[in-house]
Amino acid sequence: MLIDKNAIASHNEKLLPQHEKGFAYLMGMQPGVEKVIRKLIDFQVAIPSWALGTGGTRFGRFSGGGEPRNLEEKISDVGLLHALNRSSGAISLHIPWDIPGDAAKTKALAAQYDLRFDAVNSNTFQDQPGQKHSYKFGSLQHVDKATRKQAIDHNIEVIRHGIELGSKSLTVWLADGSCFPGQLNFRKAFQNTLEGLQEIYAALPPDWKVFVEYKAFEPNFYSMTVGDWGQSLLYANKLGEKAYTLVDLGHHLPNANIQQIVALLLNEKKLGGFHFNDSKYGDDDLTVGSIDPYQLFLIFNELVEGMDARNMDHANDLGWMIDASHNVKDPLEDLLQSVEAIMIAYAQALLVDTGSLQDAQQNNDVARAQEILQHAYRTDVRPIVAEARLRSGAALGPLQLFRENKLRDALVKERGERTVATGL
Amino acid sequence: MLIDKNAIASHNEKLLPQHEKGFAYLMGMQPGVEKVIRKLIDFQVAIPSWALGTGGTRFGRFSGGGEPRNLEEKISDVGLLHALNRSSGAISLHIPWDIPGDAAKTKALAAQYDLRFDAVNSNTFQDQPGQKHSYKFGSLQHVDKATRKQAIDHNIEVIRHGIELGSKSLTVWLADGSCFPGQLNFRKAFQNTLEGLQEIYAALPPDWKVFVEYKAFEPNFYSMTVGDWGQSLLYANKLGEKAYTLVDLGHHLPNANIQQIVALLLNEKKLGGFHFNDSKYGDDDLTVGSIDPYQLFLIFNELVEGMDARNMDHANDLGWMIDASHNVKDPLEDLLQSVEAIMIAYAQALLVDTGSLQDAQQNNDVARAQEILQHAYRTDVRPIVAEARLRSGAALGPLQLFRENKLRDALVKERGERTVATGL
Amino acid sequence: MLIDKNAIASHNEKLLPQHEKGFAYLMGMQPGVEKVIRKLIDFQVAIPSWALGTGGTRFGRFSGGGEPRNLEEKISDVGLLHALNRSSGAISLHIPWDIPGDAAKTKALAAQYDLRFDAVNSNTFQDQPGQKHSYKFGSLQHVDKATRKQAIDHNIEVIRHGIELGSKSLTVWLADGSCFPGQLNFRKAFQNTLEGLQEIYAALPPDWKVFVEYKAFEPNFYSMTVGDWGQSLLYANKLGEKAYTLVDLGHHLPNANIQQIVALLLNEKKLGGFHFNDSKYGDDDLTVGSIDPYQLFLIFNELVEGMDARNMDHANDLGWMIDASHNVKDPLEDLLQSVEAIMIAYAQALLVDTGSLQDAQQNNDVARAQEILQHAYRTDVRPIVAEARLRSGAALGPLQLFRENKLRDALVKERGERTVATGL
Amino acid sequence: MLIDKNAIASHNEKLLPQHEKGFAYLMGMQPGVEKVIRKLIDFQVAIPSWALGTGGTRFGRFSGGGEPRNLEEKISDVGLLHALNRSSGAISLHIPWDIPGDAAKTKALAAQYDLRFDAVNSNTFQDQPGQKHSYKFGSLQHVDKATRKQAIDHNIEVIRHGIELGSKSLTVWLADGSCFPGQLNFRKAFQNTLEGLQEIYAALPPDWKVFVEYKAFEPNFYSMTVGDWGQSLLYANKLGEKAYTLVDLGHHLPNANIQQIVALLLNEKKLGGFHFNDSKYGDDDLTVGSIDPYQLFLIFNELVEGMDARNMDHANDLGWMIDASHNVKDPLEDLLQSVEAIMIAYAQALLVDTGSLQDAQQNNDVARAQEILQHAYRTDVRPIVAEARLRSGAALGPLQLFRENKLRDALVKERGERTVATGL
Repeated sequence: MLIDKNAIASHNEKLLPQHEKGFAYLMGMQPGVEKVIRKLIDFQVAIPSWALGTGGTRFGRFSGGGEPRNLEEKISDVGLLHALNRSSGAISLHIPWDIPGDAAKTKALAAQYDLRFDAVNSNTFQDQPGQKHSYKFGSLQHVDKATRKQAIDHNIEVIRHGIELGSKSLTVWLADGSCFPGQLNFRKAFQNTLEGLQEIYAALPPDWKVFVEYKAFEPNFYSMTVGDWGQSLLYANKLGEKAYTLVDLGHHLPNANIQQIVALLLNEKKLGGFHFNDSKYGDDDLTVGSIDPYQLFLIFNELVEGMDARNMDHANDLGWMIDASHNVKDPLEDLLQSVEAIMIAYAQALLVDTGSLQDAQQNNDVARAQEILQHAYRTDVRPIVAEARLRSGAALGPLQLFRENKLRDALVKERGERTVATGL
Repeated sequence: MLIDKNAIASHNEKLLPQHEKGFAYLMGMQPGVEKVIRKLIDFQVAIPSWALGTGGTRFGRFSGGGEPRNLEEKISDVGLLHALNRSSGAISLHIPWDIPGDAAKTKALAAQYDLRFDAVNSNTFQDQPGQKHSYKFGSLQHVDKATRKQAIDHNIEVIRHGIELGSKSLTVWLADGSCFPGQLNFRKAFQNTLEGLQEIYAALPPDWKVFVEYKAFEPNFYSMTVGDWGQSLLYANKLGEKAYTLVDLGHHLPNANIQQIVALLLNEKKLGGFHFNDSKYGDDDLTVGSIDPYQLFLIFNELVEGMDARNMDHANDLGWMIDASHNVKDPLEDLLQSVEAIMIAYAQALLVDTGSLQDAQQNNDVARAQEILQHAYRTDVRPIVAEARLRSGAALGPLQLFRENKLRDALVKERGERTVATGL
Repeated sequence: MLIDKNAIASHNEKLLPQHEKGFAYLMGMQPGVEKVIRKLIDFQVAIPSWALGTGGTRFGRFSGGGEPRNLEEKISDVGLLHALNRSSGAISLHIPWDIPGDAAKTKALAAQYDLRFDAVNSNTFQDQPGQKHSYKFGSLQHVDKATRKQAIDHNIEVIRHGIELGSKSLTVWLADGSCFPGQLNFRKAFQNTLEGLQEIYAALPPDWKVFVEYKAFEPNFYSMTVGDWGQSLLYANKLGEKAYTLVDLGHHLPNANIQQIVALLLNEKKLGGFHFNDSKYGDDDLTVGSIDPYQLFLIFNELVEGMDARNMDHANDLGWMIDASHNVKDPLEDLLQSVEAIMIAYAQALLVDTGSLQDAQQNNDVARAQEILQHAYRTDVRPIVAEARLRSGAALGPLQLFRENKLRDALVKERGERTVATGL
Repeated sequence: MLIDKNAIASHNEKLLPQHEKGFAYLMGMQPGVEKVIRKLIDFQVAIPSWALGTGGTRFGRFSGGGEPRNLEEKISDVGLLHALNRSSGAISLHIPWDIPGDAAKTKALAAQYDLRFDAVNSNTFQDQPGQKHSYKFGSLQHVDKATRKQAIDHNIEVIRHGIELGSKSLTVWLADGSCFPGQLNFRKAFQNTLEGLQEIYAALPPDWKVFVEYKAFEPNFYSMTVGDWGQSLLYANKLGEKAYTLVDLGHHLPNANIQQIVALLLNEKKLGGFHFNDSKYGDDDLTVGSIDPYQLFLIFNELVEGMDARNMDHANDLGWMIDASHNVKDPLEDLLQSVEAIMIAYAQALLVDTGSLQDAQQNNDVARAQEILQHAYRTDVRPIVAEARLRSGAALGPLQLFRENKLRDALVKERGERTVATGL
């Protein structure tokens, strides 16, 4: 571990006077802060194993140094994040990018860092060396039964890995679709995909969930076989009660109202989880909250309202994960920024005066409804988020500490300048 | 009636030699033309009563002359279109814009023109004079039960009018939604809307259908309560087997793949009907096929393929209607162009070599699949469409005849320069 | 005037203790606040005369009560806003919706409320009663010289009105364009429009500016003759140094980076002014900052940076106006919310640590650059904005005061329930 | 060469009777066909050297076999295309993907295939092995002068290569931009880029052109430093008369009216050339005309109209190139489809009755204008395009011949199954 409790303690000591001033001010202005802090402490956002290295586009990858070279180092990186913010207590593995050689050892390693294994992710959008059938024309949708079978088997194998690690869910994201009109019979592609998902579903342990992720488009595509929440929900409903829709914030057509989608899926009891990121033009996988933080707040507002309406447990009843690509920032710094943005949005949503909001809605008092939401959003909740960190043993300023203690330099020293993490 | 059989006959006589040359050429090049012609003859596209006058935007309406002043004149206009092309044999009424005073008389009038009454359309997006509750904040979604009740009652009254006229379906389009974050509780809005639709559904005669139309956005809106096919399908599934989704080509987010939506809805047995138009930027309600005719062809390709796969009757098992706004063209000329574009796209789709296409798809021969579709699309099918008209007693060149015989001038003379049709 | 200084004073007295606490806290945390306050006090946002009544869509207008019935009452409404927030000290007239009968009297009335006249706006997108030539097919672009002449003359008349009132700029927004491919010869439309603008430009007094507003699309359109900043800039450059581009936040294609456009136009010395609003799908004319407040901040960040780089006067060197439509809110409340959102974004932009930001940029320290911007944005600057109001004699809580003192009720009592303001 | 004249001749002989029937029919129906044929024969579309292999996305590349292994084989592939259609008589090189070892030899080889060298393309969006300064944070926009210098020098080197090969133009496409708000000072990035372009411009031979290509967005980006035609035109105007804007059909925001952009750039004498492709969602680089062939026709309609208005030479005064990615089709088949789609659209545009169209426009006869365009578009011009090929010694059915003669199999046999072309 790169950082010990003493380093965090001495960092906190230094920042404490300033923090206490801010926190005291907020406590004096805003009711209900204690309750918010308790919820923040419980809330954990999973880090995907494939996002700990520099991301790339089709033109190349411009790596920084000190990237993790194997699964152990990836777990170590997430452990570092979690030590810094105590909000990243889970890791999500991608198979076959990160197959644990010895599951028990891997589990023990994660436990040392107080990490659990979140959803496992299958990959049928790339051909692996030695793979018998190609996914060039899709996987579960494929016209050839043998290719579909291979993709199904892979997913079942991923479940098996997940069981060994203590995961409780499988995320299926398919790059299935077509590039040109006429290439695909949409009905048959849907039917093939459904049947494949049904076989995978049948292999789920009783206490598992499967998340069917949708995406509006891929570069060079003309259609997507799981293209929007409507399609994902169709699959999930046909599969059964262990199947859910997964929402990735970047996977929508321009101008989509994601907040409303979230509310409707929750209402249908079919929202399974989230992939957080932000975007300007397409599926940009940018840092959470870096482009449209108000949308993030509005999404959390629906989540809090909808989960509370069904007495759901914020921390455990949905899957929360960051799914971003870090191309021009240090991946660990970027992830710290993303988690901070999530915690801020969540805290703001928890501050919404729901009673007054319901009154305003019931009276069609639109200006007042806006005032209520914007009051929560305009509140500077950073001291609340920092206090939650402080109480859970994390750093008051995780990014600041990462920089001041030159943790990336230490990683580079340990791992070298030219390491390249597997993944996106 | 402004046009008699003799006028059409003498027009056709004049164009016949040229037509016969083109038709003979196509018959020599393309197999299966006779079958296509029979299907074209059967295919009828309904004309909405509200689109016979000049349309307007928020800045005003620039009317032409001779617009129909009442329901009788609207029926007469559709009768004229149908006489010219024999493909517009249905009219779709909008209540309360066009309430028949004496239903039996109205029915008899339509019968004279060989017209039937297509879906009836309700209106809960405008306040009518003397209306008790305002729809400013929505209708079926409204927080106030009395307003919802009023909207439900209106729909039931529309069904009653439809029964009298021989309609067999109700189209419900709602401008319900919200303008600002916080204005609406999405879950409650959905639930209220569903309950309202359920009451309307309960009032449907056994042989009726209800079409739930969706729309991605309205000007000045932030959310739509029936915003995409996913939401519409949710309502339709919860309502029951008489409920269907209706697709309006202009009601989607940018870049949506409408063809795929059509295929999936057909596959779910929940596609009810179509509102045809075209658009460049938003819900522009432009002439069908005027902006993206290949998309129109691809949609018909899915319709033909999907309906044939379920042995559906092209002409009668779905509702076909034009829903466009005619702001800078003569509405009747514009409608003639729209019907022509629809018949062309349908004819091209019928020419697709489906056996070869299935082979290409089964072999992932993408280039070949594209060739097959584009061969059908690039074929100049206008002689086939004209032949279908000729055989059904219509004009070889409906628009040409409308102009040559100065039919608009006749309408202006009869109705005046400054008439303004009710409707959009 | 509906509100007197005493009412404001007693309102402020009540809120003062709470305000002072918040302001003191911010003063302790954030350097440079005094300078920010001075700039905020100077900053005035013009209110358009057409946005004081309830707005409408093509389906209708659902009016509230107490709307201004004439220009005098509109000026009174803006006067009320300005009394409440001391940031709305200008009114922008739209001709012919609001032609002053007696310019001197109108000017005197405005002076009583401490209002000046901002840009005057021409209207060639609607036909006025008795107008000789119709704008159905455009105005300055029109194929007919007489129609173009009429549009030019109207603009020159608008300038004349503006001179009488003390305006210093003319805003030209054209709904010119086409609905269908082939309708327009793009080159000739451009040329005609340019020549028209040149004649209008020639009529400008030496100390005037003309703003050429662009807009990406209108409902039912296929092309716009001033459709984007590139086209507007072409016109402005060909016209001369008194011609500028005007940016309306809602007038862009999906996903456009407006911030960058603003920076580039400033760099070209061709940014003339702003129409503030917000939008979800199209040109929605929603309350400023109600959908994407971070974008608003980023725009102000470019404005502050770019204006400072050229030593421009924030308050006076660009034209600032709200251009929104108030369909479901009280227009005055909505405008108070919009001004507040603008002042908040401006204050946050003024708090950006520009020295550190430049360092981060120079070092490609992307994470740090984001931290700097987000620190300013996450700061709750409402006490600073309120302090600026307090010092300029306005209300600490303008919207709160408007509601508590039941000012809309007073307007309804004075003007009636069923008044409908002219305008959008 | 894989195909000899005899093979083409015997193919043509087989198809001739059918072709002659179709061509005779068209000659009888449509005036002006001979003139169209002459223009089609002259029209040549350049093939980029990087698009002869299978394209990839960020998830991988699924190669077919027989891809060209070096520049010589790429030239051979383009030679084959040109032999088949006689419309692909130019190749566009990308440096450093395809640096000729011996320019004279390369030139001689190309001459054997009757190919000339079109624009040369520089690459400053990827780091090359051993490169001193990284383009991670841009090239010409870079904050560091040495990096900018390196990018400038590279462009000048590319010009040098081009001179040796007989090219007459340089295409500069920059992936410069930023991923996050705050990362870039937009003004400085613009200024740096401009200065870099100026240095490159200074190195242009007198008879050369430079094309400044724009692109609205890249994956993972927040801003583009040459993002739209407005920005490109700014650069081109500041550079001088040898600088032009280059339009790539896929490089626009959703719903952009590319036709109008083309017309305006032509009018400004700043349209330099075209990169043809098609797209559904973003910059998809799909086969030309595979998604929206009517848009392609409308673009050619503007090109023909605008070039004729200035007496430009269609074949030589603009640069025409395909820029697509072939991910699921055989690249050579895909390119044959693209060229065919271009020739069809060009032929249709040449058939437009421009005199009647001008009349209709002058009379605001919108319906008639649409009829005129659609008549040309709906005409099946494939026999005209085939006749042009026949007369220039190409195959009547290039794709058909490619398949029947199993030319890909021959390439695989010659080059192997597992070759991977350099490039995209």
